Amino acid sequence: MTEPDLTAAVRARWDALTKPQGSLGLLEETATRYAVIRGTAMPSLARKAMYVFCADHGVTAEGVSAYPAEVTPQMVRNFLRGGAAISVLCRHFGIEPIIVDAGVNAPGEKGVVDCKIDFGTRNFARVPAMTREQAELALERGRELAALAARRFDIAGLGEMGIGNTTPASALLCVFAGVTPTAATGRGTGLSRQAVARKAAVIRRALALHTPDPADAVGALAAVGGFEIAMMAGFLMGAAAHRLPVMIDGFISCAAMLAARVLEPRVEEIAFYSHRSAERAHGRMLKALGARPLLELDLRLGEGTGAALGIALLETAVRLYSDMATFAEARVAEALS
Amino acid sequence: MTEPDLTAAVRARWDALTKPQGSLGLLEETATRYAVIRGTAMPSLARKAMYVFCADHGVTAEGVSAYPAEVTPQMVRNFLRGGAAISVLCRHFGIEPIIVDAGVNAPGEKGVVDCKIDFGTRNFARVPAMTREQAELALERGRELAALAARRFDIAGLGEMGIGNTTPASALLCVFAGVTPTAATGRGTGLSRQAVARKAAVIRRALALHTPDPADAVGALAAVGGFEIAMMAGFLMGAAAHRLPVMIDGFISCAAMLAARVLEPRVEEIAFYSHRSAERAHGRMLKALGARPLLELDLRLGEGTGAALGIALLETAVRLYSDMATFAEARVAEALS
Repeated sequence: MTEPDLTAAVRARWDALTKPQGSLGLLEETATRYAVIRGTAMPSLARKAMYVFCADHGVTAEGVSAYPAEVTPQMVRNFLRGGAAISVLCRHFGIEPIIVDAGVNAPGEKGVVDCKIDFGTRNFARVPAMTREQAELALERGRELAALAARRFDIAGLGEMGIGNTTPASALLCVFAGVTPTAATGRGTGLSRQAVARKAAVIRRALALHTPDPADAVGALAAVGGFEIAMMAGFLMGAAAHRLPVMIDGFISCAAMLAARVLEPRVEEIAFYSHRSAERAHGRMLKALGARPLLELDLRLGEGTGAALGIALLETAVRLYSDMATFAEARVAEALS
Repeated sequence: MTEPDLTAAVRARWDALTKPQGSLGLLEETATRYAVIRGTAMPSLARKAMYVFCADHGVTAEGVSAYPAEVTPQMVRNFLRGGAAISVLCRHFGIEPIIVDAGVNAPGEKGVVDCKIDFGTRNFARVPAMTREQAELALERGRELAALAARRFDIAGLGEMGIGNTTPASALLCVFAGVTPTAATGRGTGLSRQAVARKAAVIRRALALHTPDPADAVGALAAVGGFEIAMMAGFLMGAAAHRLPVMIDGFISCAAMLAARVLEPRVEEIAFYSHRSAERAHGRMLKALGARPLLELDLRLGEGTGAALGIALLETAVRLYSDMATFAEARVAEALS
């Protein structure tokens, strides 16, 4: 079936179900897109994964985070032991958590997928965050992970964790959407107002130093990105190639999307936006992406927490689509013409 | 423990969990309120019910609905057979559906709680929708149901179904919040623009005819209300008396809240607002109630569908609160001061 035919078939089923047409709003639209990506009018959504890309950031030396950098490996262990927010959500929703070490500044942990590019990026306030080769390697690892994910799962959540990583995300928002450092910078995990101003100044200095070109996404990622961000961008590209639906989390994963769509515009076809976070510039970023997210709950935690809620909501929408009775089955009268 | 002490204890646990303080946003606030209503710092949320109050409306004679009135009993049977949207959601989330006949214009059905006040209201464009005694009886039945619910459940969803029932809900918005009929009236299940104008004119005429007094909520319900709306108002009052948390659905259940809080201001303590619907005046109504709903998904279906999603979200929040590791348990460093 062609994509327009499939879309029409899915909409026709929605309209045959016992409810006013269109009355399930975003749930109908979202499940329809999901069916079209999966290429079937009766899709299942049973095999769910959450990829949590973890890495460290040299720019934390500039005092841009409310937490010390050693929290990154500590939180990786918390994921493995099941005590983090994303661990609880994955258990609750039946999502398989897959923790990826994209560049944590600590030895690898058993149970973590080893894609370590290096032990954290360098401090991009002074030097490029990574070499161009490292950015390309991170993208490639992400593409490989997505190719494997497409064989095992119906959907993948895109989450991350890495102390300091709102700073590269804000810098990439400046690069790709022409937003000023002040407008692009927020409180992250809980900075004071003065610390936010310092963080914006660090970004301003870095952009002046590296002058990243938005048309060269690899170069921009190398200059002011992060290993987890580059790997998420690659994951999105691989997901587009293999038609794997991806539920994007918050500010950091959206920054990966900003880079990915420069390299492969088709990433937009497989991406769902789970939520608008409380990070100040996330609204600007979503606008630049042309996205309307499903949820707005003032979350600002990352880890894929919003994406997990988004997957659960999409699963609910698919369940409604699959399980509701039609007007004919239920012998309910349709709308007056 | 006093309520302020309990609130402080719950917040202290949230702040001890391995995440930046406050980073779960509305989920933290909502679960905190839930714990305080339940009177314990470690609440469970296992026993969930969805009360769907069903009734018919004489005002449908004025052509105010896109669906014929016989759809009300047909949908009741659809609920019983499990084919409706709310049936699917209740199965998916483990919520017990309780279908209440508050005034359906058809014989009672096995499996439905019989609280029928009459076989539909009268046409309030011409005469009062019900007698004052009927309004009081509906409130009383609602209070009784809530008293029973409080013994069996941790939380109750408040949903409804009744062809034509956005018309009394809009009329009550005019009465209790001083909104004009034009601003209070929307498309319901899918009216044309002309039909919406006709519906607003019907409401304007009814208000001029009955001149309901916002200080006399029983009189207002009798004049332009509905049996399911009055019974939901009573349910909210009973829930407040028995400290049963109630997750309110959309436009119609919020109209019940407008009436209920005049009769018993403490209903606000136990009410959660699940979503902002696509019905045009729901935003105005939520504002009048001082409510910030959890979700905004352009739903306009009723039946408690938004409330079911709200209960699932609250359950998720309680799960995070209960199951996440603390900083001490996980040996994760806390924020730099």
